[in-house]
Amino acid sequence: MRHLLTLDGLSRDALGSLLDAAHALRPDALKRTAHRPLRGLTVANLFFEPSTRTRASFQLAAQRLGADVLTFEADSSSTRKGETLTDTLRNLEAMGASLFVVRHTHSSVPAMLATAAADGSSVVSAGDGRTSHPTQGLLDMLTIRQHKGEDFSRLSVAIVGDIRHSRVARSDIQALRTLGLRDLRLAAPPALLPDTGEVCFAGAQVADSLDAALEGCDVVMMLRLQRERMDEGLVSSLEEYYRDWGLSPERLALAKPDVIVLHPGPMNRGVEIADAVADGPQSVILEQVSNGVAVRMAVLAALAKG
Amino acid sequence: MRHLLTLDGLSRDALGSLLDAAHALRPDALKRTAHRPLRGLTVANLFFEPSTRTRASFQLAAQRLGADVLTFEADSSSTRKGETLTDTLRNLEAMGASLFVVRHTHSSVPAMLATAAADGSSVVSAGDGRTSHPTQGLLDMLTIRQHKGEDFSRLSVAIVGDIRHSRVARSDIQALRTLGLRDLRLAAPPALLPDTGEVCFAGAQVADSLDAALEGCDVVMMLRLQRERMDEGLVSSLEEYYRDWGLSPERLALAKPDVIVLHPGPMNRGVEIADAVADGPQSVILEQVSNGVAVRMAVLAALAKG
Amino acid sequence: MRHLLTLDGLSRDALGSLLDAAHALRPDALKRTAHRPLRGLTVANLFFEPSTRTRASFQLAAQRLGADVLTFEADSSSTRKGETLTDTLRNLEAMGASLFVVRHTHSSVPAMLATAAADGSSVVSAGDGRTSHPTQGLLDMLTIRQHKGEDFSRLSVAIVGDIRHSRVARSDIQALRTLGLRDLRLAAPPALLPDTGEVCFAGAQVADSLDAALEGCDVVMMLRLQRERMDEGLVSSLEEYYRDWGLSPERLALAKPDVIVLHPGPMNRGVEIADAVADGPQSVILEQVSNGVAVRMAVLAALAKG
Repeated sequence: MRHLLTLDGLSRDALGSLLDAAHALRPDALKRTAHRPLRGLTVANLFFEPSTRTRASFQLAAQRLGADVLTFEADSSSTRKGETLTDTLRNLEAMGASLFVVRHTHSSVPAMLATAAADGSSVVSAGDGRTSHPTQGLLDMLTIRQHKGEDFSRLSVAIVGDIRHSRVARSDIQALRTLGLRDLRLAAPPALLPDTGEVCFAGAQVADSLDAALEGCDVVMMLRLQRERMDEGLVSSLEEYYRDWGLSPERLALAKPDVIVLHPGPMNRGVEIADAVADGPQSVILEQVSNGVAVRMAVLAALAKG
Repeated sequence: MRHLLTLDGLSRDALGSLLDAAHALRPDALKRTAHRPLRGLTVANLFFEPSTRTRASFQLAAQRLGADVLTFEADSSSTRKGETLTDTLRNLEAMGASLFVVRHTHSSVPAMLATAAADGSSVVSAGDGRTSHPTQGLLDMLTIRQHKGEDFSRLSVAIVGDIRHSRVARSDIQALRTLGLRDLRLAAPPALLPDTGEVCFAGAQVADSLDAALEGCDVVMMLRLQRERMDEGLVSSLEEYYRDWGLSPERLALAKPDVIVLHPGPMNRGVEIADAVADGPQSVILEQVSNGVAVRMAVLAALAKG
Repeated sequence: MRHLLTLDGLSRDALGSLLDAAHALRPDALKRTAHRPLRGLTVANLFFEPSTRTRASFQLAAQRLGADVLTFEADSSSTRKGETLTDTLRNLEAMGASLFVVRHTHSSVPAMLATAAADGSSVVSAGDGRTSHPTQGLLDMLTIRQHKGEDFSRLSVAIVGDIRHSRVARSDIQALRTLGLRDLRLAAPPALLPDTGEVCFAGAQVADSLDAALEGCDVVMMLRLQRERMDEGLVSSLEEYYRDWGLSPERLALAKPDVIVLHPGPMNRGVEIADAVADGPQSVILEQVSNGVAVRMAVLAALAKG
């Protein structure tokens, strides 16, 4: 694997190997160990969009593999001075960085940097535009697999919330399908549903209501509601959103008894999810976070091997 | 010791043990050594209020014990996105962090996070509201003890400046009393004196003037004058403040010949303290800073032991 | 060597030794190795002016030598609270830092801090005012020497662009002369030429045009055009600037066939330099960046030895 820009087109074998590697790394993921396969390498975190958890997760993953980490956030970077992103990449390569973790509001940026990268360098998207967030997709799959096993063809999965603007939903759906999922349900207010023509969503079942989506399902993947959606007039009020699309314990009771609930964080408690669900026995939200470090370690290690 | 949120209520033995441990760590505190008892642990610095020296001191303390350090400052944290502080804590725990250093403008935040913390996690306050700054209190005690010995009952200590708004003063007074201090003098313009009813200050002697407070004392603890106090109308001018409450060499001559002068920094030279005092032979201000690293190492090591 | 504030006055031997040391460090400069001569030392990066590449370069240099690094950027530093820079330095010394990398808009700051520094501490300028950027000067010399050999007396060097405001140009010229350069040509629009009386530029040949400067030269050192120059009315338009002073492939053909082109970055492509030159076979711009890490390692190691 040379770069990780999207889960779209990744084979079932490649996906399975990454998940196996991440699962095996879990004991090492939460504590720095003596095993340091990336010792001597430099990982550059290029975050052109604010992020706490994803940046911290990649930083810890890199450090726990023994790499050095350079972090750039948009406000402190010389892109202010008008340098091109490609020149920033090439400069960091010239200083010895070889693994680039890139988050950007524009979808095309990680792919553009991957094209510009030198032979020994790799780019991993840490979220770009509304298109792709591959490591989030992987950690979600790992979490589902740990609870539901490897056969995704028998599962029913509901994705709920602002699907239209969500890179998490897109990466999740690509991976779910590769792993064999057939029963995929989308639930969102009409303004937050994706265009019906977008290929990523072809064949998914658009539910009439949250209740319909939840009925008998094995996995609920909640999405964050960005507050900008209200300013844009796509959502009328947080109260109304919760009433119609928020995951309450009552609603969750419509799903299978052993349903699991995922959320990519940060959560808007009381908007898209009730406290009792977020902190309840079916929530696997903090497991997702732990898996995130293991997944990023597996990805960085795979890219470093080339 | 599970958390360190305040020095209020800490026993004389517990306080003494921390100071002994910190004193013993001093040779290791200014240079990373091979001894790394926190290797494998991750310390998260959560600074929701700007800080240079305290943040750097905790970072160096953690690194010199062999820990990994994650730093979050308010402006770059996802609290902007509306996540609760408790969720931030739990996410970092899920990534393997177990020691949380928290600075916040609201007094209740470190205690709230300590309540939310998982079994293996510890919270240490790095300054909260105007209530508590326990590691500053400890480093001040260590500095006094190094110069004046362990019997605080024979000492006279003057605390001078904006006592009303000072978490440093409150933590200092709690520790001074635990260590046996009887002669405590407070000197401040009336608007910067604390409420007489506040229990922390009960029994302290409010001096009529700075001269009266300094007369024959062994230790002078100067406080920083925040410039906001002028905007709030609590201080009329910096010149007047220095004239009435600034520590000049002439005034310091009223204290005992071997008096020591402390200041938590950053200093407003020419406002609360004259250059000749700040840089003079009785100043132990830079010793406080060195002791700060040792104290924070002792605290982190004690919390890691649980 | 106690401090590195300027290349002005540095002997040819001292300059040569630093370049030799940096050249020898190149294999270690792009990958952290087991050799860690600065282990246990703390380097403080004090950046009071935004910087990506110089800060990253010093950070990597320090880390690859085994040092710990503390980074302060202007916006997050307590200078906001009114502390003097000297007090910031002394506080960091009291925490164990002994190597200070300082960037500041005012020329006098690194020298002032060097005067205030304790016996075991060293200051290196990472760019101050328009006066000095010694490590940039060194890395430029190293890059030229690698291509053109040690005898600078036979070379023709053109420096092109905003020379008036450039600390890079001043450090380069000081070093070029120490190394024996005789044919130095300056090319800039009149408003960006330095005062004729400034001693640094005495004896340099001011070219009438970029073409005249380039004619038969061995080395072209391009400078960045700060966009502020337009706001100040010193440059009328970027298009016009490129037409008259931009380095195009056609113009570069006037120089010797084996001419090399340097630029300190970040580049304004299409303003002071054409893409085809920046990315062309005569560009050594990324070699400069790699050499920068090696040079900073050599400087930090020399200062640590005292």
